[in-house]
Amino acid sequence: MFELMIHLENDSKKPLYEQIYTYIRENIADGKISYGEKLPSTRFLSKYLQVSRSTVELAYEQLLSEGYIESEPCRGYFVSDISKLYHIHIERENKEKEYSIRKKQQQSYKIVFSPNQNEMQYFPYNAWRKLSKEILAENNPDLFLAGEAAGEIELREAICNYIYHARGVNCIPDQIIVGAGNEYLLILLAQVLGSGRSVAIENPTYLQAYRTLQSMEYTMLAVGSDENGLSIEEIRVAKPDIIYTMPSRQFPMGMVMPMKRRLELLHWAAEKEDRYIIEDDHDSEFRYKGKPIPSLQGSDRNGKVIYMGTFSKSIGASIRVSYMVLPEHLLEVYYQKCGFYASTVPKEQQKMLAAFMNQGYFERYLNKMRGIYKGKHDIFLALLKKEAWVHKIYGDYAGMHVLVEVNSKMSAEEIVEEAKKQGVRIYALEEFMISDKKKPVMKYPTLVLGYGALSEAKMREGIAVIENVLQKEDSI
Amino acid sequence: MFELMIHLENDSKKPLYEQIYTYIRENIADGKISYGEKLPSTRFLSKYLQVSRSTVELAYEQLLSEGYIESEPCRGYFVSDISKLYHIHIERENKEKEYSIRKKQQQSYKIVFSPNQNEMQYFPYNAWRKLSKEILAENNPDLFLAGEAAGEIELREAICNYIYHARGVNCIPDQIIVGAGNEYLLILLAQVLGSGRSVAIENPTYLQAYRTLQSMEYTMLAVGSDENGLSIEEIRVAKPDIIYTMPSRQFPMGMVMPMKRRLELLHWAAEKEDRYIIEDDHDSEFRYKGKPIPSLQGSDRNGKVIYMGTFSKSIGASIRVSYMVLPEHLLEVYYQKCGFYASTVPKEQQKMLAAFMNQGYFERYLNKMRGIYKGKHDIFLALLKKEAWVHKIYGDYAGMHVLVEVNSKMSAEEIVEEAKKQGVRIYALEEFMISDKKKPVMKYPTLVLGYGALSEAKMREGIAVIENVLQKEDSI
Repeated sequence: MFELMIHLENDSKKPLYEQIYTYIRENIADGKISYGEKLPSTRFLSKYLQVSRSTVELAYEQLLSEGYIESEPCRGYFVSDISKLYHIHIERENKEKEYSIRKKQQQSYKIVFSPNQNEMQYFPYNAWRKLSKEILAENNPDLFLAGEAAGEIELREAICNYIYHARGVNCIPDQIIVGAGNEYLLILLAQVLGSGRSVAIENPTYLQAYRTLQSMEYTMLAVGSDENGLSIEEIRVAKPDIIYTMPSRQFPMGMVMPMKRRLELLHWAAEKEDRYIIEDDHDSEFRYKGKPIPSLQGSDRNGKVIYMGTFSKSIGASIRVSYMVLPEHLLEVYYQKCGFYASTVPKEQQKMLAAFMNQGYFERYLNKMRGIYKGKHDIFLALLKKEAWVHKIYGDYAGMHVLVEVNSKMSAEEIVEEAKKQGVRIYALEEFMISDKKKPVMKYPTLVLGYGALSEAKMREGIAVIENVLQKEDSI
Repeated sequence: MFELMIHLENDSKKPLYEQIYTYIRENIADGKISYGEKLPSTRFLSKYLQVSRSTVELAYEQLLSEGYIESEPCRGYFVSDISKLYHIHIERENKEKEYSIRKKQQQSYKIVFSPNQNEMQYFPYNAWRKLSKEILAENNPDLFLAGEAAGEIELREAICNYIYHARGVNCIPDQIIVGAGNEYLLILLAQVLGSGRSVAIENPTYLQAYRTLQSMEYTMLAVGSDENGLSIEEIRVAKPDIIYTMPSRQFPMGMVMPMKRRLELLHWAAEKEDRYIIEDDHDSEFRYKGKPIPSLQGSDRNGKVIYMGTFSKSIGASIRVSYMVLPEHLLEVYYQKCGFYASTVPKEQQKMLAAFMNQGYFERYLNKMRGIYKGKHDIFLALLKKEAWVHKIYGDYAGMHVLVEVNSKMSAEEIVEEAKKQGVRIYALEEFMISDKKKPVMKYPTLVLGYGALSEAKMREGIAVIENVLQKEDSI
């Protein structure tokens, strides 16, 4: 019999049975107690350690259930052959290891004017914790069993309700497909719409969407825009099957598509049976002037619009929940071609989000954040307007970024490079253009400046750096 | 000024300020207090309601922050134009609505012998709750900001460590790509390996993998197996670029590929530069006899194997976390072609899982569950062996299902249909065969019977139904 060196700590947070369990388990794992050895009886050990017999029994049960020991009727407990068990030693050295292939050193900046970063300090963490606790409260095996391919019905109902009231989207929950991000949904959608199709997309645009559709072997056609958005003339020339557009607020240009252009697009789509419009309604939540413009989908009478929305801006980028609304006649194809894909969003996350929406937190948070972002917008615009290098500002009064035309002989890309050297990341409009189709769309060099995650101090500091970069150039 | 009808409840769970806030908010939302109306001063209202002034101030601040009221210096508080705010009325009637397009009525069975369902009643829900609480404990904005495309490094380190110790996979964390399920990772992989390639896949197989690769426009070649797995002769005839295989335990056949066949496959892959083997190591965690067989990846010296694993079986189907290990030389292509896709797994979920692994819960749970599943396996096998209709059993001593050849003149599909009528879902081997390539691979009709989620009582009841189905046929 092995030597007993268990020192029980009565005032430890760890229950006594767990201390016994851990001691024996570690000794078995380390080979100090070996295969086939007999353990002391629970009666003996409880007396020896001066604990209750049930405490020892609990420890033994735990060891039994995890396969460290076996019970032989009338003979007692014996150490198992543990070579079959998992022993996952956490190797701390691992963490020190230098990884040779680490993705190119990510440069860190003191200030990033990202158009896609949002402010997370006002998030209702308490509510989120409360909901998490409620959802995990019961030992609910269902939480871990496979769910519905298109998403949990309670979340699809909450989304349906929200996009109807907030965005005028007409649908029933069955038309909503929930997925882990817009790109993933575009991959599914390409399978629904079929292979080998051509897509017209504005240039500049969300390059992620461009690249995703391209990776699905779609023919991508870059088309121009005028002040009302996507040019219908260019569509007539390019002859795509599908249009990808952001009518509520084009990214990154910021223009809103007026009703007339919307109707022209819908008319174009209705002309042929398999034409479709993908409406990306990415950050329509935040408008600081006038009423929000309802979705294009809401004006569609022919089942031509696929509406896409996301919680990445309204909640946070890492939440990884997006949704698309399919026209009813595409649902059968969806279930046939994609019904076998399990949902990519964990059920726990879906239930959290549904509760967050159904209990009113989402609505309150949106309303609060609009105020916060409007405040940031007003400060940022006021700061920019004082700057002599600012020629003109576009895309204000909505979202979390503006376009700024700059009085400078430098190119926007040169300005960006110089600012980087001073630890400030700003963006050139060209960075949002399709790589082999970069062409000047603005008269002056144009920057994309996001302010969603920045404090006033950071804005001031960043603007001073841009000014500094531009002054330097003048003095040359 | 509007009429004050607030009835404060001192003994309510809701704080007083929240009661005031809710009352005013609802009155504004309902139009009972309208745009431009002046609110009573905080001083007046606190006196009137006999609460502290700070309580009223708190309520007003909340209303301000959510945009319901505006403050005008020296004049007081006024109701805002709330037509710009979100009002998401939860329509309860919605829930009663009959959805016309609801996906074909899912039949419910009293017993399902699913090969993919696992037992969740032993999951350490307490530990999961504890970790969730810890991770959400601080108001951590970072939790909601975009993470690394390939997955959080702490999770990739934990996985790296686990697959090294448990499966002999040789890699560094940088080679691991985390994603929301195997199908999603296959979609990424198809982009890394390039378009228009051909894949040999065993038949029968995991049809999800077959369909996913097919949907990526890959040419799919169904190849046969012998008792050692994938036939190398058929590979030589089919001439694929890529092989998709499950060497540790073929699904659904259950055979384990011996070392000789593995080396033949690796040799085949090494012959040409762009040949690859996708190793799906789906349920290697659960073996009840002998030592687990190390991964094929562990024997690969030429960077030819892409290893894929999942937590769907070891934890639960809805957790939606899978991972693949890319050979080092494919990492550059991955970052170039797929680096722009944001990770599909929420950061919160990734942190939970990393903590679950790093704190030893995963190891303990795996060891416990192996004991549980072994117990179920032993009971199920003992029950089956008593049955006269059972001709032969394959794929035992591992996983959560067996293959059963049946003494019957009925086809397996007929047996399945008859059992369905009695509320029991069993599976015919043909259901796992590629639809246009169904051919008999067994002499007798063969059933796939999963027992992972079933109690002994359910097993008995289900087996009695199968017996009943088969007896009926005899008596005809």
